[in-house]
Amino acid sequence: MKKRQRSGGAPPLEFVAGNGLLHRRALLQSGVMFAGALGSGAALTSAAAEPLTEPEWSLYPGAITPVLQSPSKYEKDVVRTLSNPKGDARTQHARAPLQKLNGTVTPNALHFTINHSGIPDIDPEKHVLVIHGMVKQPLEFTIDALLRYPMVTRKHFVECGGNSAPMFSPEPIQAPLQALHGLVSCAEWTGVPVSTLLDEAGVDPKASWMLAEGADSLAVSRSVPLKKAYDDAIVALYQNGERIMPGNGYPMRLLLPGYEGNMNVKFLRRLKVVDQPAMTYYESRNYSPLLPDGKAYKFYFVNEVKSFITQPLFGYAMKGPGFYEISGIAYSGTGRIEKVLVSADGGKSWGEAAVEGPVSPRAFTRFSMPWRWDGQPATLTSRAWDDSGAVQPLRADFIAVRGEAKKVPNVLGFPNQHYNSLTAWGIQSTGEIKHVYV
Amino acid sequence: MKKRQRSGGAPPLEFVAGNGLLHRRALLQSGVMFAGALGSGAALTSAAAEPLTEPEWSLYPGAITPVLQSPSKYEKDVVRTLSNPKGDARTQHARAPLQKLNGTVTPNALHFTINHSGIPDIDPEKHVLVIHGMVKQPLEFTIDALLRYPMVTRKHFVECGGNSAPMFSPEPIQAPLQALHGLVSCAEWTGVPVSTLLDEAGVDPKASWMLAEGADSLAVSRSVPLKKAYDDAIVALYQNGERIMPGNGYPMRLLLPGYEGNMNVKFLRRLKVVDQPAMTYYESRNYSPLLPDGKAYKFYFVNEVKSFITQPLFGYAMKGPGFYEISGIAYSGTGRIEKVLVSADGGKSWGEAAVEGPVSPRAFTRFSMPWRWDGQPATLTSRAWDDSGAVQPLRADFIAVRGEAKKVPNVLGFPNQHYNSLTAWGIQSTGEIKHVYV
Repeated sequence: MKKRQRSGGAPPLEFVAGNGLLHRRALLQSGVMFAGALGSGAALTSAAAEPLTEPEWSLYPGAITPVLQSPSKYEKDVVRTLSNPKGDARTQHARAPLQKLNGTVTPNALHFTINHSGIPDIDPEKHVLVIHGMVKQPLEFTIDALLRYPMVTRKHFVECGGNSAPMFSPEPIQAPLQALHGLVSCAEWTGVPVSTLLDEAGVDPKASWMLAEGADSLAVSRSVPLKKAYDDAIVALYQNGERIMPGNGYPMRLLLPGYEGNMNVKFLRRLKVVDQPAMTYYESRNYSPLLPDGKAYKFYFVNEVKSFITQPLFGYAMKGPGFYEISGIAYSGTGRIEKVLVSADGGKSWGEAAVEGPVSPRAFTRFSMPWRWDGQPATLTSRAWDDSGAVQPLRADFIAVRGEAKKVPNVLGFPNQHYNSLTAWGIQSTGEIKHVYV
Repeated sequence: MKKRQRSGGAPPLEFVAGNGLLHRRALLQSGVMFAGALGSGAALTSAAAEPLTEPEWSLYPGAITPVLQSPSKYEKDVVRTLSNPKGDARTQHARAPLQKLNGTVTPNALHFTINHSGIPDIDPEKHVLVIHGMVKQPLEFTIDALLRYPMVTRKHFVECGGNSAPMFSPEPIQAPLQALHGLVSCAEWTGVPVSTLLDEAGVDPKASWMLAEGADSLAVSRSVPLKKAYDDAIVALYQNGERIMPGNGYPMRLLLPGYEGNMNVKFLRRLKVVDQPAMTYYESRNYSPLLPDGKAYKFYFVNEVKSFITQPLFGYAMKGPGFYEISGIAYSGTGRIEKVLVSADGGKSWGEAAVEGPVSPRAFTRFSMPWRWDGQPATLTSRAWDDSGAVQPLRADFIAVRGEAKKVPNVLGFPNQHYNSLTAWGIQSTGEIKHVYV
């Protein structure tokens, strides 16, 4: 048997930063540190005496197995929140309940979606993908044809450019994580590399962009640099193993790893190879916010490196002093998460979090940090680095460049885009947790 | 822009084994090989002329976004198959439709389940996990307490020891993959390492096993070597990011990576530390098949290395000669998949498949192989190796040791366990595909 310390006195606690942040090695190497030194929430039990008490569900046979299983009724609050539940003639957002999830994958039922004109009911037998424009031979692909092509499987987040917009507010908004950052999710996507399809059509060497267009009634369309198309773009047919969800683009979507959500065109019906951007409505208006100098900010594709703590956080009530794990999500459109620092004193001191591997590029990465709360006020925050050298900016620096929330007439586009500064949670001595700025 | 061959003549095809198996580099490096040399199913289109035709779903706004999204109505056949849909007083199996899935993750709705007395409806506020027996201090953990502990996230398959039992049949059974191999699935599990909890309770050095028991009405229980508990066992609370499904053990299950399904005790309510196996009903009867010499085969924990092709396969109709991707799943309870070979001539010649990374140990690994079908009969099969040196046995060797299907009175346990030899698909010149043995 693997040699381990199984009992004996609690080892000395090794702190790495202020307000109780513990070295991440501590929990992997030491013995009975919880009960003695930390207080974990576990209770001594008299249950050594058998038999154990029998709750009602242990007395009778349970429910019949269904063909499709769904979460327990006790998890009925784990749902997406809707911006437009009646489906009025405007955009519909569904935000993912990231504060109630763990790990690195967002279940398909809970993956965030944004649809500008509802969710089209597409018959996959009749849907085709056309590749045309500056190509040698325009081609048409049915689903059946695409399913014969070589596929790749990649875990990637998709994030709306407008995710975290509430963070531009001058005062921290007291709202669940879902309301602040719920327009990002992560899934395993499987599909055909766009490069394979472009190669078959034969791209004109003078071409430099492609127009990607969806089959929804607004025909959402964006111009994509051919370089990205060749680098790592895929026509995704599967999401977490099953065919893609209707709200995520059934029967197929363009996946541009690390590029803002709307460019990952859903219900994909064509890729038109061209030699300049098409300046579609969605790139010249919706996703072109006005900068302070009066110019439009266009073609900013990549979701910048970001992280936030998902536990403990706003809405959670601390259960008294003792041990807690701090856990959160980090991701970056420019690479692989390399390091996440965590602070319990609002940024005065930092400790390096453990990062759960294997770390995939442009994917949710789970970080964690052991923490002993002493019952006094504390401010938790996190900051991430990726392997391209990008770092999550401090809030003062970010706001100095990007400004606070702007209310601009709607015709000038969505103003509060691509927030990627820190998120912080203020623990009160009462155990209540508030959203704060650091 | 990344330099790529975008047009020009098709490169020569590079075959790696008989009956059209192509080198896996081919598709990543070459240009327009499909249309010219292979035939891919893509059609030349006149759609270069705009506008594209507008299907009905592109003319009007679509459906309202729901709080929980679910698959398209066109995917209504992607469901689990049930062995006992009325919930009679016996075991209920739900088999995963692996032939309709892709990638490496099984969506939670489709994860296989086996329940011996239905699915208990457990209130997570009232459920507790007890650790007792040969420990310094017996402990009781509520869910709230466990949620404060350090967690790990790991992608692992879980497989029933009886998965693939139909493969013991002397003649190949003509049935969908789901019926043959549907009692295995793969998910990302998040939970607390068992070692952390045992350390807190303080295990007696003389202990060597633990009894894991569920809160279902049959109290399914298995003895687990403490070595495994310390190596990599976790008390799993999350499955693919959300709380564990009811049929998979809500609110928590034991996860023993690579160990047969029933040992991963669901609805986990206690771990009792002991110094010998408890010889429970489930280890002395259900999962102790009789060997030819009359002895019972017990405590065979690990799911052996296995692979099977999920495309093309029984039930798929070939669309005429041309290019197809062969794709499948490999996994092993003893390690990480290192190599998968594929044959299109029933095992006479083999080519090495591409394996999708990152390859996690004890997890589904997707392999693929480009293939040009010439329209003649062909027999597809796969064979996997893992990094422990284990290799999937050829059928003749496997049957020589394990025998063909045995019908043994039920009181002597489930006889046809742990099949891990090859699965083969016979392509007919008509395009029909049969299940065959090689």
